[in-house]
Amino acid sequence: MPYTLEQLSDRQDLVDLLHAYCRAVDDNRPDDVADLFAEDCVLDYGGDYTNLVGRNLARKFFTGGTDRLYKRSAHHVSNIEIGFTGTDGDGRRTATGSTYVWAWHEFNQDQFEAEMPNAWVYGRYYDRFVHHDGQWLIAARTFRALGHHDWQSPVTYIDREPRVSPIR
Amino acid sequence: MPYTLEQLSDRQDLVDLLHAYCRAVDDNRPDDVADLFAEDCVLDYGGDYTNLVGRNLARKFFTGGTDRLYKRSAHHVSNIEIGFTGTDGDGRRTATGSTYVWAWHEFNQDQFEAEMPNAWVYGRYYDRFVHHDGQWLIAARTFRALGHHDWQSPVTYIDREPRVSPIR
Amino acid sequence: MPYTLEQLSDRQDLVDLLHAYCRAVDDNRPDDVADLFAEDCVLDYGGDYTNLVGRNLARKFFTGGTDRLYKRSAHHVSNIEIGFTGTDGDGRRTATGSTYVWAWHEFNQDQFEAEMPNAWVYGRYYDRFVHHDGQWLIAARTFRALGHHDWQSPVTYIDREPRVSPIR
Repeated sequence: MPYTLEQLSDRQDLVDLLHAYCRAVDDNRPDDVADLFAEDCVLDYGGDYTNLVGRNLARKFFTGGTDRLYKRSAHHVSNIEIGFTGTDGDGRRTATGSTYVWAWHEFNQDQFEAEMPNAWVYGRYYDRFVHHDGQWLIAARTFRALGHHDWQSPVTYIDREPRVSPIR
Repeated sequence: MPYTLEQLSDRQDLVDLLHAYCRAVDDNRPDDVADLFAEDCVLDYGGDYTNLVGRNLARKFFTGGTDRLYKRSAHHVSNIEIGFTGTDGDGRRTATGSTYVWAWHEFNQDQFEAEMPNAWVYGRYYDRFVHHDGQWLIAARTFRALGHHDWQSPVTYIDREPRVSPIR
Repeated sequence: MPYTLEQLSDRQDLVDLLHAYCRAVDDNRPDDVADLFAEDCVLDYGGDYTNLVGRNLARKFFTGGTDRLYKRSAHHVSNIEIGFTGTDGDGRRTATGSTYVWAWHEFNQDQFEAEMPNAWVYGRYYDRFVHHDGQWLIAARTFRALGHHDWQSPVTYIDREPRVSPIR
């Protein structure tokens, strides 16, 4: 399926957006993270988190992560798949994305009762994007885990196809 | 070396193919994995694996991995280098690729005699691609390891240049 | 911000350069690594390393790493952000980059007094690029760490925003 120049350009803009997200998270700039989301964004991070609606709640959520809980972090994204989905009711262009993230965290120990080890989480961001006022924003983000190492909180996994091979 | 729009579009199609491979593997959809390979594909995964020829053997191989052995997996690809290599004897466009993969695995314990720890493998896919019936397919894949962590089977490493620095 | 075809092509050339760097490092081809840097390049790897100026010192530095110290390595890059910054005093095109690297190392044990465990480093390359004689080169590279696992030498971390949340 050939891509047009406009699609390749839009695709690169969306990739830039995903990278800006990681950079702002790892720099501990939660206000800048929140500015990459739409005013009425929806966040579904699974696990024990309830869904969050709106940029203000997103800002609180990211501040709680990058500033309060994490001493350091590293969010490596890859496997970025973008689909263009036309326009929304307001005539704004829309797109969807599936992105792999490999995220490492070192924690502020004073926030926990017990020693909190460094933890890795591997997963996918399923995103909806909207082009608003000349820039692409994340309109909705769902995070689902592929796996983890030493992550202490519950995670919601992707919907992996159930096994059909015989147990032995 | 400037890229043409057609090359950038083809490159993105090939990147999409590599990402679709990872997504289908981690989703445990081995039939969809096999459909990304050419009918007469050749797979060389090294280690104890013999070379496999044909999509049917590929399907069995991937089913044995994603459905039987892996409880969960995460295949993160990066460092994707694509070269365009003209056309084959049937006039189909061809390309080559070198892709880094960082693959994490959690195993179905009932398939092993002893406890099987989660394992990471780092390596490269060396691919040949062919454009057949309007879509790019993997015509041949060779996997070579860069390293691993707790992987219990033999691996075949890349041909790293031998050391010339003195031993001390 | 729409990209032109020339920018997308240049961007891909720079991505190719970053990937060629990783491949040459992990192949233990330090001469080929050095050839990707400008004659008067500046390397700032932080930690205990002093800044290095010039391709000859870069070659020595990379040889000391890939050939002498590392038995194997795996450099996975992602989150590549490129900015075009016009031309330099010699009329050569310039660009900047921020790139995430996830680097794994297995060491030549004979180079160390004590057992040296495999080590992971996560960080960012901040690069300046220059287009010289028809190809993009790395004119200056600064490495800053996001985190690490079992890396035994000092690292210089990124300038993360200081925490403002209360300690409890």
